[in-house]
Amino acid sequence: MAPLPKHLTGDKAAIDEFINQFDVFLFDCDGVLWSGDHLFPGTVETLELLRSRGKKTIFVTNNSTKSRADYLKKLTSMGIPSNVDEIFASAYSSAIYISRIMKLPAPKNKVFVIGEAGIETELRSEGVEFLGGTDPALRRDITPEDYTNIANGSMLDENVGIVLAGLDFHINYLKLSLGYQYLARGAKFLATNLDSTLPSAKTFFPGAGSISVPLINMTGQQPIALGKPSQAMMDSIEGKFHFDRKKACMVGDRLDTDIQFGLEGKLGGTLAVLTGVSRKEQWEVEDAPVVPHYYVDKLSDLSG
Amino acid sequence: MAPLPKHLTGDKAAIDEFINQFDVFLFDCDGVLWSGDHLFPGTVETLELLRSRGKKTIFVTNNSTKSRADYLKKLTSMGIPSNVDEIFASAYSSAIYISRIMKLPAPKNKVFVIGEAGIETELRSEGVEFLGGTDPALRRDITPEDYTNIANGSMLDENVGIVLAGLDFHINYLKLSLGYQYLARGAKFLATNLDSTLPSAKTFFPGAGSISVPLINMTGQQPIALGKPSQAMMDSIEGKFHFDRKKACMVGDRLDTDIQFGLEGKLGGTLAVLTGVSRKEQWEVEDAPVVPHYYVDKLSDLSG
Repeated sequence: MAPLPKHLTGDKAAIDEFINQFDVFLFDCDGVLWSGDHLFPGTVETLELLRSRGKKTIFVTNNSTKSRADYLKKLTSMGIPSNVDEIFASAYSSAIYISRIMKLPAPKNKVFVIGEAGIETELRSEGVEFLGGTDPALRRDITPEDYTNIANGSMLDENVGIVLAGLDFHINYLKLSLGYQYLARGAKFLATNLDSTLPSAKTFFPGAGSISVPLINMTGQQPIALGKPSQAMMDSIEGKFHFDRKKACMVGDRLDTDIQFGLEGKLGGTLAVLTGVSRKEQWEVEDAPVVPHYYVDKLSDLSG
Repeated sequence: MAPLPKHLTGDKAAIDEFINQFDVFLFDCDGVLWSGDHLFPGTVETLELLRSRGKKTIFVTNNSTKSRADYLKKLTSMGIPSNVDEIFASAYSSAIYISRIMKLPAPKNKVFVIGEAGIETELRSEGVEFLGGTDPALRRDITPEDYTNIANGSMLDENVGIVLAGLDFHINYLKLSLGYQYLARGAKFLATNLDSTLPSAKTFFPGAGSISVPLINMTGQQPIALGKPSQAMMDSIEGKFHFDRKKACMVGDRLDTDIQFGLEGKLGGTLAVLTGVSRKEQWEVEDAPVVPHYYVDKLSDLSG
């Protein structure tokens, strides 16, 4: 059994020792730095404290609707100083995986996207051809002709070799039908991330994992996931930033994505914050599957 | 291990003996009598043969988009003589379950429907109040205000006690968000049926089970299913028709819904047809989970 995590809130000496151990802090964002459009008090000061002590800060998000450039805007609008090279999002992670790891031979290497503009931007920046996504032609009801034309292939692009599913606020029956059909015809199945829910307005809305799960249900196939806790994402981050995993700490609010991600990636530390999804009761039970090394009530307790 | 099923195709004596054993034949429809809009040759003649020998025929369908009256129209348009009392569909089964078995006390007994008009017709016929369903106000994109109004409850009807999910060709992010929120606030979770796919145009499209699966994924709850193979449906059918289960045979194309339904219901017989989803290779493997008593290549082999 993993030992219980150390509670850092209010313990200045322990906080100091905690910070000193690490060179790099990987931050989940929503539920850690802010919730929806509400910046948590003290977030900026905490990041500044870490940076002033020479720590590298990296923002690692499963949010697949935004490109890195979009995410930089979000950080800036929240008053968090940052730059695009500090940002690692699941849309970017997916694009990198497709272009640099899968490298399917042309011409059967197009991507059918279920998702929003952020995925398209990152695929475009990696030179990956795609269709679907925000195409307005797919934002409509299915018609009787569609059944025939999907079945006989005339509505399909025969060069699709990959279906990539992320969070899609415009999910519909037609897109799910097309996604299924490409998978049934042999396309590889990727998901930006598998979060079942998206925290917003102090409750939950469907997450990317609840957009791809109908395709999992229909095909019996599990997608390769490119978001936390997938180690495909950790490998990409390390490949880009070249840090010592033992001197890196993952900070997050979700045990089953963020903390799991850090533990599986054998980072030196994992810090849970209680301002998001997970509760400390989850690791206080016997045989808790995921136990962080440390926790704070809120991120700003590190600088409080 | 269950013995392999008897293959009746081409064996007139065995077919005769098979038919003689039963008083009642329960038929799955799509994949058995027809596929999509294509009536299989010999379907009408086979039903007439059974009826001429005094057998009761009942059409049992997981199709939740149609009311019994809609389904009668479908049978009639296909050239299959029938009447509404021979029809048992999952929308009807769901309405019966809500009104006669659950009987939630008013006022917290409204149903939030994810599905099409057939469900609404059957709920109305049982006097069950509902919202959602085909309401055009929900056939739109989610807006920033919706997040707030769903979270604070102002967009919700506080008298919703049940979420019923069936096949919805107009599924969208807003409906899934509302369905989740009602469940998170304690509503009971029902599904008309859990078929992952819907056969059409000789391929597959998302079935009702792929519409409810995002809610299962988000809540971790399993719905009570009112379609095959759920025995809640068998109990309803028996309650209505009062037949001897030992003298009844379930005819279907899906092992995991139709045949499982007959086996779990301890009917005297189950007959698989090979004109739909399942293949005989599925029961020819060792430890096959579902093995029918009989099979034919196609339904009309019974009258051929």
